[in-house]
Amino acid sequence: MGEQRRIGSSLRFASRPAIVATGTVVGPMEAKGPLTQWFDTVVDDAMYGERTPEKAERRFMQDAIDIALGNASLQPENVHLMVGGDLLNQIVTSAFTAAKYPAPFLGLYGACSTCTEGLIVAAAMVDAGYADIAVSVTSSHYQSAERQFRYPIELNIQRKATSQYTVTGAGAMVVARGAGKVAVTEATIGRVLDLGIKDPNQMGPAMAPAAADTLFRHFADLGRTPEYYDLILTGDLGSVGSSILHELMRKRGVPLGDAHRDSGAWIFQGVPGTGVGGSGCACAAVTLGGYVFKQMMANELSRALVVATGALLSSLTWQQGESVPAVAHAVALEVQPQAAATS
Amino acid sequence: MGEQRRIGSSLRFASRPAIVATGTVVGPMEAKGPLTQWFDTVVDDAMYGERTPEKAERRFMQDAIDIALGNASLQPENVHLMVGGDLLNQIVTSAFTAAKYPAPFLGLYGACSTCTEGLIVAAAMVDAGYADIAVSVTSSHYQSAERQFRYPIELNIQRKATSQYTVTGAGAMVVARGAGKVAVTEATIGRVLDLGIKDPNQMGPAMAPAAADTLFRHFADLGRTPEYYDLILTGDLGSVGSSILHELMRKRGVPLGDAHRDSGAWIFQGVPGTGVGGSGCACAAVTLGGYVFKQMMANELSRALVVATGALLSSLTWQQGESVPAVAHAVALEVQPQAAATS
Repeated sequence: MGEQRRIGSSLRFASRPAIVATGTVVGPMEAKGPLTQWFDTVVDDAMYGERTPEKAERRFMQDAIDIALGNASLQPENVHLMVGGDLLNQIVTSAFTAAKYPAPFLGLYGACSTCTEGLIVAAAMVDAGYADIAVSVTSSHYQSAERQFRYPIELNIQRKATSQYTVTGAGAMVVARGAGKVAVTEATIGRVLDLGIKDPNQMGPAMAPAAADTLFRHFADLGRTPEYYDLILTGDLGSVGSSILHELMRKRGVPLGDAHRDSGAWIFQGVPGTGVGGSGCACAAVTLGGYVFKQMMANELSRALVVATGALLSSLTWQQGESVPAVAHAVALEVQPQAAATS
Repeated sequence: MGEQRRIGSSLRFASRPAIVATGTVVGPMEAKGPLTQWFDTVVDDAMYGERTPEKAERRFMQDAIDIALGNASLQPENVHLMVGGDLLNQIVTSAFTAAKYPAPFLGLYGACSTCTEGLIVAAAMVDAGYADIAVSVTSSHYQSAERQFRYPIELNIQRKATSQYTVTGAGAMVVARGAGKVAVTEATIGRVLDLGIKDPNQMGPAMAPAAADTLFRHFADLGRTPEYYDLILTGDLGSVGSSILHELMRKRGVPLGDAHRDSGAWIFQGVPGTGVGGSGCACAAVTLGGYVFKQMMANELSRALVVATGALLSSLTWQQGESVPAVAHAVALEVQPQAAATS
């Protein structure tokens, strides 16, 4: 009872659970971008030898888990809890993948914010002592997402200039008790905001206010300013949504400053045909599990705030002319200077 | 750190958070069944005056939350965390409903097991101290579920004798720290099992092995037998799935005994046209929030184990000829003899 775990509307992980390993797998398009060196595996064929993109997506997810467990020198039997989600209806990628592992499983859905939602739930469960080792995993796939949310890619519909491009890949994180180097220190769970945006090609503008709300609450709850962090990683706002976020934070008196990067805008920087940037559960997941985690392990970053954003629409609600509610979940990571190696 | 919160693969809520209030709302079909006296509100028109069943479902969910908050004498501003989910693609019922409240929101998906998944997450967050007051909510609606998972009801497709009938309604629970009468004491999170069942009209048989696995682990972890509980409530297995569950538990040497009821078989007992019983996120939720909670408050039950079950399919995976993985999450509730009243 002693530890103060609620700080206003934010969470403090009193025992400082750590991300002890990650696994990241992406497709060929993602390998063309500037983050490619940080991914564990690049698969040349986005179909991964499978007959459907849905089955291919499961292989990405399973690979990410297996790589993360391997990097942590753990067997599947060592995992007390698995949490995860994806974009497909009824999160079937996660359900079919979880069936391959013996760990209890909590299914999550926060659209592209699921990456940090999962890390929050995993870190909370480990911090409180319900699990010693938890795995959080998320995935997305361009082809399975396009045919579910927009049009089958075979129709070759002209993409809008403001469209985002779903990242094909998966990211897994192993969270464990005790002395790891990359500690999960605090989190701010998002509130769902619905500002009435109705264009499914305008996800960044729909999500930016949710990101601003979560960031603002995070800084207020913890008495911090954006300068506290070496990196503030949002995702997947894209370039348009990022501009709106900066404007919203400036108006609220908390300018984000130079430490901000958006995983959506970043992952496909300079890659033709990717619109205003990447999206999908995997976008923030592979950026967090790849660049952020590895730069923290290498002491190139010491404090990072990751704010994954999700647009909470379905094809049906869009067809029924409804707006797009959005949410963003923030997680703070901090390098522990005196931590012992875990493997 | 002192409290032991992990017991094998099960969770112990060391501080004994309590369900301090519930809210249950159902449609006219559910009011014909034997549990009708336990629901807070019966809505005569399943469309609730809305133009689409999706919008009607949101009204059920919002009513359930408002009733639960009212029963707990709380305002929406008092809630530190809301968790929830539903059956619709991208859990849009929950997303649009969460946008009406100021609390941070975690979206969950466990199909019809979401009711206990939500209670586990809410109880864990409160027990560990991340939130003082959390709300867990789930909903389902016959018409929105039928058109998404099977056929639009306007087609009047002949239902199979083994089909279940989706419950129209919603259930919300308020979980709070400290001395409540109905304590959430332990939980066993389900593992996803995929035994190769492919018929979407056979959900009970697909889910029964998952329920058996969770129950078996629960009893083994906690050193209990089924006799420990006055009531073991599964759901929504229906009558066929319940028979299979009893057979599986008998074979494993842990016969379930007379204390077992299935919310799916129970809620529509004697109601014509409902097949082998009810299903949907609301099925276990309104039975738990209605009958179980109120009987515990009245000292008619002192220990209950609720095991909500979920079939993790999507229309797409079914059309692609794939099997139906399943999961079941168990939560133990216990009346606290010396608890002070909370309102």
